[in-house]
Amino acid sequence: MAVVMETLISTRTAHYTSLLKLVNHMRTTQISLSVDDLPKKWYNITGDLPEPLPPPKEPETGPSRAEFLGKTMIHECLGQEGSTDRWIPIPEEIRELYIQAGRPRPLYRARRLEKHLGLKKVRLYYKREDLSPTGSHKVNTALAQAYYAAKEGKTTLVTETGAGQWGSALSYAASLMELECIVFWVRAVYDWKSDRRTFMKLLGATVYPSPSKETGIGRELLAKNPNNQGSLGIAVSEGLEYASQHEGVVYSLGSVLNYVLIHQSVIGLETIEQFKLVDDEPDLIVGCLGGGSNFGGIALPFAGEVLQGKRECEFLAAQSEAAPNLVKGEYRYDFGDVAEQTPLLKMYTLGHLAEMEPIKADGLRYHAAAPFISALRHRNLVRAVAYPTDERVVFEAARMFFRTEGWLVAPESSYAVKASIDEARKAEKAGEEKVICMNISGHGFLDIEAYREKLGVE
Amino acid sequence: MAVVMETLISTRTAHYTSLLKLVNHMRTTQISLSVDDLPKKWYNITGDLPEPLPPPKEPETGPSRAEFLGKTMIHECLGQEGSTDRWIPIPEEIRELYIQAGRPRPLYRARRLEKHLGLKKVRLYYKREDLSPTGSHKVNTALAQAYYAAKEGKTTLVTETGAGQWGSALSYAASLMELECIVFWVRAVYDWKSDRRTFMKLLGATVYPSPSKETGIGRELLAKNPNNQGSLGIAVSEGLEYASQHEGVVYSLGSVLNYVLIHQSVIGLETIEQFKLVDDEPDLIVGCLGGGSNFGGIALPFAGEVLQGKRECEFLAAQSEAAPNLVKGEYRYDFGDVAEQTPLLKMYTLGHLAEMEPIKADGLRYHAAAPFISALRHRNLVRAVAYPTDERVVFEAARMFFRTEGWLVAPESSYAVKASIDEARKAEKAGEEKVICMNISGHGFLDIEAYREKLGVE
Repeated sequence: MAVVMETLISTRTAHYTSLLKLVNHMRTTQISLSVDDLPKKWYNITGDLPEPLPPPKEPETGPSRAEFLGKTMIHECLGQEGSTDRWIPIPEEIRELYIQAGRPRPLYRARRLEKHLGLKKVRLYYKREDLSPTGSHKVNTALAQAYYAAKEGKTTLVTETGAGQWGSALSYAASLMELECIVFWVRAVYDWKSDRRTFMKLLGATVYPSPSKETGIGRELLAKNPNNQGSLGIAVSEGLEYASQHEGVVYSLGSVLNYVLIHQSVIGLETIEQFKLVDDEPDLIVGCLGGGSNFGGIALPFAGEVLQGKRECEFLAAQSEAAPNLVKGEYRYDFGDVAEQTPLLKMYTLGHLAEMEPIKADGLRYHAAAPFISALRHRNLVRAVAYPTDERVVFEAARMFFRTEGWLVAPESSYAVKASIDEARKAEKAGEEKVICMNISGHGFLDIEAYREKLGVE
Repeated sequence: MAVVMETLISTRTAHYTSLLKLVNHMRTTQISLSVDDLPKKWYNITGDLPEPLPPPKEPETGPSRAEFLGKTMIHECLGQEGSTDRWIPIPEEIRELYIQAGRPRPLYRARRLEKHLGLKKVRLYYKREDLSPTGSHKVNTALAQAYYAAKEGKTTLVTETGAGQWGSALSYAASLMELECIVFWVRAVYDWKSDRRTFMKLLGATVYPSPSKETGIGRELLAKNPNNQGSLGIAVSEGLEYASQHEGVVYSLGSVLNYVLIHQSVIGLETIEQFKLVDDEPDLIVGCLGGGSNFGGIALPFAGEVLQGKRECEFLAAQSEAAPNLVKGEYRYDFGDVAEQTPLLKMYTLGHLAEMEPIKADGLRYHAAAPFISALRHRNLVRAVAYPTDERVVFEAARMFFRTEGWLVAPESSYAVKASIDEARKAEKAGEEKVICMNISGHGFLDIEAYREKLGVE
């Protein structure tokens, strides 16, 4: 009897052990959190920075920008902008919006890509912000802003958009919060990206090619040249003018500002929990960086723990040579926008009037890096790399990712993929054990034309 | 002391209760399974049907179709086609592929749509097959077929595609299994859907506009008319000819056959577990239906339990008047394809040579319903409804879904959305308590042009 029992137990144990091994193996492909594990607080790095964040400044000429923004923007967000609280509670209503939008999002172990690259020492992970309903991480702040705007009695969100990701995210958030949404969209892109345009309009947004007849600035420019193709600077100016002159309208921004990066921290906070589940830890976090919102989203919660002495981890921003603000920029006060309507912020900047070559990863074409990221860069806590503007190598990396992992990433995200592959190969060659985690900021379903052109796949 | 303790306990209990309520509320928005809960077996309804499934038959003239298919198709799949086993184990390797592709997929409670419709008595749920890497449920069988093909020593998968969803799914599966993939694509669609074409090619597939110069049939047709725009029948014939004449090549089919619906059962099996989690049960399952693979996928596991006397549930297929096979078809033996290369199958059919009006939901344009579905329809276990070919009402329903739930569905899925809304309104009006669950078979990111055209959203 004892022998039978023993056999039974050992059989069961063996069975259990193999089961456990299996489960762990599978867990380390797709690492999911339950809905209950969605973070309850956003992380704000302000108080953990090695030195106080240089405050925004008024420019020497012109009216007070802070006063102007105070009138046109969401008060709760402006409060968060200057907050030094490490943790900012996420209102239950915003958590529900996040869940509606599919959060928490999985973290994947890139086993197939690892195999393809022949990695033995290096482990690769990627966070799935591409699973967003609008195709990018931008919804994380759009939903928060729409909620606060509604709570403050506003009826309408207004913004500008370049590539169209931010306009899509805000249109989506407005739709879910039953608010109006007005998007001023650079005319050159508006005319060309018909799918993005329809996407926003289907959500009920009013989308104007900018310059438009809806604002004084727009009318003035159109009077001079009816075929003015617009620019991000013009679109910002139109949005701000519209917000300041209409009742119940607030202006929303999708990157750079502290509160945007605070909202995006939900990405990194989830990722920290996901690494715990598989008992692993990243040595390097990689994200693409234009203004810095997806990069900050994944990096800042980890960076905070580094600054608190709780972990060791490096950070790498993947940029384009079209806008290598962290690679070649100067750390100084500059405007956040071409139209000079924001206060001056201390940032690594190429100059707010810098000409930037057009690239498919349009979301990376921004002259400066967010103050939070710039402060870390200044202390050498963030590294940066810039890839050539022909974009061939990044699209090639994205194709490799697509063929091995099976997910088509946004042009912007392909920079993070490329940088991660480069770092993995370097470490492997050096015989260094390394865990690399990249953020996939968006999907590429609406950017297939860019792939077609860049890789010549007809 | 006792009072203090009591207060403490009651405070904690209140806290716990409110927490629980909250968690349950959130659970019933996004109902997720863990990776460990992915089904380990597919469900096969064959043995549970009220009468034996009418077997395939050879047509009176021409060569043996069964023999031909035996040579050109995957053996394991043909074995499953005739299996009477209720449960068919999912090989561990296929489970890992499913996990890679993002399974299990969430079930959502459509709280926002319910609110918009003013529903008090009716609860709406939807299953998220739109989260697929290629944009539809087709990956569920594509991955299984690619795995079995590789196991049987094949090097190449060949198929035909109409709308492009099946070609995309098979290209994806081939890429993950490191197989070659050849797609014969109806020329008219090939020329037009440049994004789908690039999508497949990025995955490494070889995509030929059909008729092509790669086959005898194709060359013959092109000799007669170099501008032949092709048809699904021609594409099937080319694929089968190619498979029969090349070493290591197998032909893959994406719908209608029993084994395809068996693979798709993973959808319904997950959904059954998800309903248990929220302690609810569907009274009605709704899916769109062309050949029947997504409909069968969600419906058959529930239907099996109905047939076993374990639950009560109704089933509704949402069709187009372009191909109302379950609504207006005859239950008789017919070919599965225009080219008459399959055995005869007993199905509700409009005739395999029926002319079908073009619609945007091209995946619903099929002349017959899968044998499994047809057998249930014959016993009045499946209802069906067909919507007009101008598609206005279904796209309107999809827009309502997009604005409330925030997810852009595929044109095909919009039929399921429309039918669910119609049924919900009907039940609500009748004061009937009802739980409706629809399957969202795919996303609409690659079909925005269809929305633009049908809804006039420029």
